[in-house]
Amino acid sequence: MSAFSVKLGAAIRRRRQALGLSQEALAALAGVNRTYLGEIERGAVDVSALYLQRIADGLDLKLSELIRLYEEDSRGN
Amino acid sequence: MSAFSVKLGAAIRRRRQALGLSQEALAALAGVNRTYLGEIERGAVDVSALYLQRIADGLDLKLSELIRLYEEDSRGN
Repeated sequence: MSAFSVKLGAAIRRRRQALGLSQEALAALAGVNRTYLGEIERGAVDVSALYLQRIADGLDLKLSELIRLYEEDSRGN
Repeated sequence: MSAFSVKLGAAIRRRRQALGLSQEALAALAGVNRTYLGEIERGAVDVSALYLQRIADGLDLKLSELIRLYEEDSRGN
């Protein structure tokens, strides 16, 4: 578990919750196993770029926009 | 091998070449095995977000900037 994965996962969770989506709903939208999505959100796994792209799609973001959410949160840390 | 991985790898290669870096040099900067970097650039592997972050660092880009290079290249495809 890395600080990077934890912060990236937290950014995904915040965006999902801001959209009012359950983990089940986002997992279905993104075509990702719900258990795996939970691990990604906790930063327990190092998500692959391809899955990250699918999750960004499910969150109605470009992948660069999802990454920017993480970067904005990490600024100054 | 996915179209996503191929285009992302091509964006990494273009940026590396624009900086005048060899694969060996970028691999050393990013702390990534050179053979693995070659596979990433060819799109033969689905790179993890953590490795992608290291490669962006080696290319002197924020991760979101590296992803934007890929997205700009893919526009309209």
